[in-house]
Amino acid sequence: MSLPEEPAVLAPHEARALFRAGALPATTSGWCRGYAQANLLAVPRDLAFDALLFACRNPGPCPVIAVTDPGGFRPAELAAGADLRTDLPAYRIYEYGLLVAEVPDATGYWRDDLVAFLIGCSFSFETALAEAGVPVRHMEQGRNVPMYVTDRACRPAGRLAGPLVVSMRPIPAALVDRAVEVSGRYRTMHGPPVHIGDPSALGIADLDRPDFGDPVAFEQGDVPVFWPCGVTPQAAVMASRPPYAVTHSPGRMFITDQAMNGPGATGSMWG
Amino acid sequence: MSLPEEPAVLAPHEARALFRAGALPATTSGWCRGYAQANLLAVPRDLAFDALLFACRNPGPCPVIAVTDPGGFRPAELAAGADLRTDLPAYRIYEYGLLVAEVPDATGYWRDDLVAFLIGCSFSFETALAEAGVPVRHMEQGRNVPMYVTDRACRPAGRLAGPLVVSMRPIPAALVDRAVEVSGRYRTMHGPPVHIGDPSALGIADLDRPDFGDPVAFEQGDVPVFWPCGVTPQAAVMASRPPYAVTHSPGRMFITDQAMNGPGATGSMWG
Repeated sequence: MSLPEEPAVLAPHEARALFRAGALPATTSGWCRGYAQANLLAVPRDLAFDALLFACRNPGPCPVIAVTDPGGFRPAELAAGADLRTDLPAYRIYEYGLLVAEVPDATGYWRDDLVAFLIGCSFSFETALAEAGVPVRHMEQGRNVPMYVTDRACRPAGRLAGPLVVSMRPIPAALVDRAVEVSGRYRTMHGPPVHIGDPSALGIADLDRPDFGDPVAFEQGDVPVFWPCGVTPQAAVMASRPPYAVTHSPGRMFITDQAMNGPGATGSMWG
Repeated sequence: MSLPEEPAVLAPHEARALFRAGALPATTSGWCRGYAQANLLAVPRDLAFDALLFACRNPGPCPVIAVTDPGGFRPAELAAGADLRTDLPAYRIYEYGLLVAEVPDATGYWRDDLVAFLIGCSFSFETALAEAGVPVRHMEQGRNVPMYVTDRACRPAGRLAGPLVVSMRPIPAALVDRAVEVSGRYRTMHGPPVHIGDPSALGIADLDRPDFGDPVAFEQGDVPVFWPCGVTPQAAVMASRPPYAVTHSPGRMFITDQAMNGPGATGSMWG
């Protein structure tokens, strides 16, 4: 399955159909310009309360925008006709915190008791950054965003605990305030940065060696800016070792029908 | 146990000690001026996911500010030394949606598997309303706030569904905008009104016959203003009939140590 030449102008349902048919991009960053993208965490019903409470207690990295019933895989309120088992480019399967498989189709791994959480993704506001004149380096360089496990602990919930994960974008120093202001509008997509500048303040030793995604090249005058990242619950799965979890593959997101200039994108999608 | 002459100036821990000793006010409205008050919903662990999801999907009536571990009754982050089983004036016990007891002490009803949710209460911003020059009629009249079951359905979650419950305050027409602005600052305490004016728009037939609390007298030029109410999850229990739940008695709240001019009161208390 070949990839489209201009993924930015695809409609979300077109992108989902491509992924369902097996297309496997390096990342969905830059795909379907102007539409919200989401992280996936699916856990057995028995762990669902802990997962939702973990998200509530850590709203920066874990802004939940939809939850399925147990066994459900159709988040109709976010994307008509979508199937969470097939419509993401790639999935990770965890058993007792260990990554046991990375697959383009999770149908065979979807259990009747899985509750799926969709969590806002910062890819969603990258179009708004670019339109505000803020360059998005990893998009310019055709790469996945770099993501890092930090030394900051999330607030635990029941059996789930783990570190904050962040995404990083190099931003020209003079445009950092604009990046803060633009991203800050989108609280359900992680909102404003959690840290600006020195990576060691987050316990990050080397920006060239991200824990997930690709390293990204800085240009002269760029400052590293760090946003809370929806891989955080995945890191909690790795740290806390529950029996089973299905997630998206970092940077390969679920693309929703939710327009980022629509009413749901800036406020809560719950209300 | 006699009630204090000036409950408004008590410290929260003093009020909690009085309730623990058996003092039974008609309402905690006006008690411990400037401190946040909270609704209580405690359900068995098996129903906790549905309860938390119901709250997330209905953030207006159900702004959760703390959650205990199963069996826990000490919300230390909100009130040092407090005991949720004894420190509210009165409790309601529900079995299969039926009110089977109303008691001043819930110790004998607290099960090892109960997960307690504390939900912000609009009493918390009544001091701010009064300080902004907005009269609070039920406080002036020494009554509980009137609360009404509406014809608006909440978004269901799992086994929980039910109607929106609102509290109502008569506000002088010229001050309604100020009441909206002031209450709107306190999103974890229900935030701005959900409706202003005609009660029939909410399916309320007679303001003089509230479903909970006391009727309140209007003065010339007052307009009824309706806020989402934390009795809403209690109404969901009544409508959905889960096997067991413990709640506060409407209008008789848990008084926290959280100052309403502190950082937690206007933003999320989770973050």
